[in-house]
Amino acid sequence: MSAGVGRVYFGRRYMLSASHRLHNEALSAEENRATYGKCNNPHGHGHNYVVEVLMGGRVDPETGMVVNMAALDEAVRSRVVERFDHTNLNLDSLFVNRVPTTENLTKAIFELLDGSIVDGSIVDGSIQDRSIEPAKLVRVRVEETENNFFEYSGESS
Amino acid sequence: MSAGVGRVYFGRRYMLSASHRLHNEALSAEENRATYGKCNNPHGHGHNYVVEVLMGGRVDPETGMVVNMAALDEAVRSRVVERFDHTNLNLDSLFVNRVPTTENLTKAIFELLDGSIVDGSIVDGSIQDRSIEPAKLVRVRVEETENNFFEYSGESS
Amino acid sequence: MSAGVGRVYFGRRYMLSASHRLHNEALSAEENRATYGKCNNPHGHGHNYVVEVLMGGRVDPETGMVVNMAALDEAVRSRVVERFDHTNLNLDSLFVNRVPTTENLTKAIFELLDGSIVDGSIVDGSIQDRSIEPAKLVRVRVEETENNFFEYSGESS
Amino acid sequence: MSAGVGRVYFGRRYMLSASHRLHNEALSAEENRATYGKCNNPHGHGHNYVVEVLMGGRVDPETGMVVNMAALDEAVRSRVVERFDHTNLNLDSLFVNRVPTTENLTKAIFELLDGSIVDGSIVDGSIQDRSIEPAKLVRVRVEETENNFFEYSGESS
Amino acid sequence: MSAGVGRVYFGRRYMLSASHRLHNEALSAEENRATYGKCNNPHGHGHNYVVEVLMGGRVDPETGMVVNMAALDEAVRSRVVERFDHTNLNLDSLFVNRVPTTENLTKAIFELLDGSIVDGSIVDGSIQDRSIEPAKLVRVRVEETENNFFEYSGESS
Amino acid sequence: MSAGVGRVYFGRRYMLSASHRLHNEALSAEENRATYGKCNNPHGHGHNYVVEVLMGGRVDPETGMVVNMAALDEAVRSRVVERFDHTNLNLDSLFVNRVPTTENLTKAIFELLDGSIVDGSIVDGSIQDRSIEPAKLVRVRVEETENNFFEYSGESS
Repeated sequence: MSAGVGRVYFGRRYMLSASHRLHNEALSAEENRATYGKCNNPHGHGHNYVVEVLMGGRVDPETGMVVNMAALDEAVRSRVVERFDHTNLNLDSLFVNRVPTTENLTKAIFELLDGSIVDGSIVDGSIQDRSIEPAKLVRVRVEETENNFFEYSGESS
Repeated sequence: MSAGVGRVYFGRRYMLSASHRLHNEALSAEENRATYGKCNNPHGHGHNYVVEVLMGGRVDPETGMVVNMAALDEAVRSRVVERFDHTNLNLDSLFVNRVPTTENLTKAIFELLDGSIVDGSIVDGSIQDRSIEPAKLVRVRVEETENNFFEYSGESS
Repeated sequence: MSAGVGRVYFGRRYMLSASHRLHNEALSAEENRATYGKCNNPHGHGHNYVVEVLMGGRVDPETGMVVNMAALDEAVRSRVVERFDHTNLNLDSLFVNRVPTTENLTKAIFELLDGSIVDGSIVDGSIQDRSIEPAKLVRVRVEETENNFFEYSGESS
Repeated sequence: MSAGVGRVYFGRRYMLSASHRLHNEALSAEENRATYGKCNNPHGHGHNYVVEVLMGGRVDPETGMVVNMAALDEAVRSRVVERFDHTNLNLDSLFVNRVPTTENLTKAIFELLDGSIVDGSIVDGSIQDRSIEPAKLVRVRVEETENNFFEYSGESS
Repeated sequence: MSAGVGRVYFGRRYMLSASHRLHNEALSAEENRATYGKCNNPHGHGHNYVVEVLMGGRVDPETGMVVNMAALDEAVRSRVVERFDHTNLNLDSLFVNRVPTTENLTKAIFELLDGSIVDGSIVDGSIQDRSIEPAKLVRVRVEETENNFFEYSGESS
Repeated sequence: MSAGVGRVYFGRRYMLSASHRLHNEALSAEENRATYGKCNNPHGHGHNYVVEVLMGGRVDPETGMVVNMAALDEAVRSRVVERFDHTNLNLDSLFVNRVPTTENLTKAIFELLDGSIVDGSIVDGSIQDRSIEPAKLVRVRVEETENNFFEYSGESS
């Protein structure tokens, strides 16, 4: 194989602020407290989440790029940031039956973005037309605080 | 004056997560939205606040220290972190008549800590006994996100 | 004075990428090389500059805010980021007679923003109408790399 | 297998500043603008690139080390930093036929360093003589800004 | 497989300060100096080590969590931080026959924590009882300085 | 005054690793333990210190610079980094009668550098000859960990 064959991974960070309360209605008040500690406080609390999206693919020899950054920004803005930024996660339809832990938020963001690639919305014309395979979503990482992060790569990776 | 006379400033960072909603009951819904934008979303949102406490004073020649770090940690823990961490700021008694903007949170933290120095609770025995003046609170800085911060130094500095 | 009288400082970070070449036409090639080292390389080089804008003022008791963040963002975007981002600084009219060192860039940004407050463009209606004095620009800080920064506070501070 | 058998990975960060302009001569002016946006500005712009080199190998039981850090520093300095720091990437011979995107810069750095291992120049005597296999280059990561990074691991990993 | 099947990785950072001297009694003074440079200085030197522990597993559908954070904190505190924080690594029994390089420290921390999972001590009751497999230690990363880090994932990963 | 008159401040970060033990021979073992906690451990511990040097002065209209960076680097290297990097601070002659707390280290670094300006060694020829006043050392900041820092500005500032 020639030197230009390997994949390049491109990661980009986005920020969103949201509140959540960790609470499972199926558990007793005592069990909730034991499981979630102060994250179970009744009136919620909040975080600045840093969302890092990692795309991977071959470099297009014509453009020298792996993914169109403006298209990726638009996908993340419309599907993730607008949905969750400055909201209470507990009220989102995705968290009706899932506790809004950052584990579940990370998975939800992966799924929201992974779909956006399947339906082509983040790949602009010139890239869709290129002869090489399109880049794909490889991993979502969510930093909950400076000292905590979560990563998810889907079911098949 | 000899070389050891000047003050040394000691800064220490603490973290807390909380939710808030920016809303002033004295304003109309439209005015609230115009003033606070998405920070006025009805169900609140949240942040990881980084609280940086800056103390200043002369170095005790016996210990080589400006302030007893364990005593400072205890004051910040008991007066600030326990009060605000994993809470909804809108429900705190300090924010009944003040919108919980980060400007007002910064001032509130300064006032909570400044009092703790006046009444001596953060200065342990060995430091209270020393012949030089005790260190004092110089400034509180609150980082709301990676890209936003607020600072307050009280009324007289 | 009551407890709410002191000023609060609000800092906000913006990013821009630009290239520059350090070179003074009034100096010989040898003097330029001695003064600027590899920053004098003929084809330029570049940086990601982090621009931190510090505003200071009293907290408006009605809104709990020092400055309208959206108005500040618009002023920095229109006067600084659009002007310098993804450009070659040597070609800007401000640097015809000034070498585009980061010292001079920091001063130029302060002057561009300081003017925007004098003419009122960053203060929106509700804040202009408030009875307390408007916030003012206190300092501009430009981080040239992770390990280098420059700060400027104007002529009178 | 005994407990000391697994590999240890060692990453080290280097910094370089350079300018570039994204432009493909084979495309029309309009296509270039559509593909690269403001990165196509005619006079270039710049970045501080953080280059992270990841080496992996077994720990030498005699020295407790995976790679000789001084030798690695010398290889990166002589092959990468001296070549690209404070330059215009568009003028480098590697980018005559490749647009100097950060994707292509990341690959170029990997290839420049990978060669240095093949020919032994970053492995000093004591390590070359050791009975265990030498460490090898695993990945190059280039951070273009605080919020963007690219990674490449070669063709065979 | 349904969408919730993949693993989620959870990373958490801890800090410890310690001193060490790199020296191998089996080597001559000259060989020690050649191998370790200034890290061989007779009186030692020190670092703030950042220890990042990465756990991976399936999200418990009941709690929405991968691992109980309080239990993980307790394991890292009791097995790693208490052992190494504010100590001289050369005096630890683990480093009688291993030079206390950060490579070896990284492996030692992995082994100390990996054992704590085998014997169940970091998994609290509710998680031990869950029907899905427990989370396991995936990787330990130790940052020696801002610009240097080491990673180890055990023998079998 | 014209617009170019104000001072510009230039800060630059350096790194050094050292060990220390906090212990005052004039105190009893019990008093030492009460004052310094685990920092009194008999075999010392260590830190990566980040030393930030802040210089202030007027911008030279000819060069556009406040201070010659190469000259500053040389002064910090020869007077501070070479002296303290990879050493045990307790053995330095400056700490025979001063406990090597970071407060005292910060003051010591300020004094070592402040002298280097008085005797002119960090100001190169072209700057010494310039008609405007030379830049001076304004402040030394030492970061002991990510969450702790100390600052000192001398006796007269």
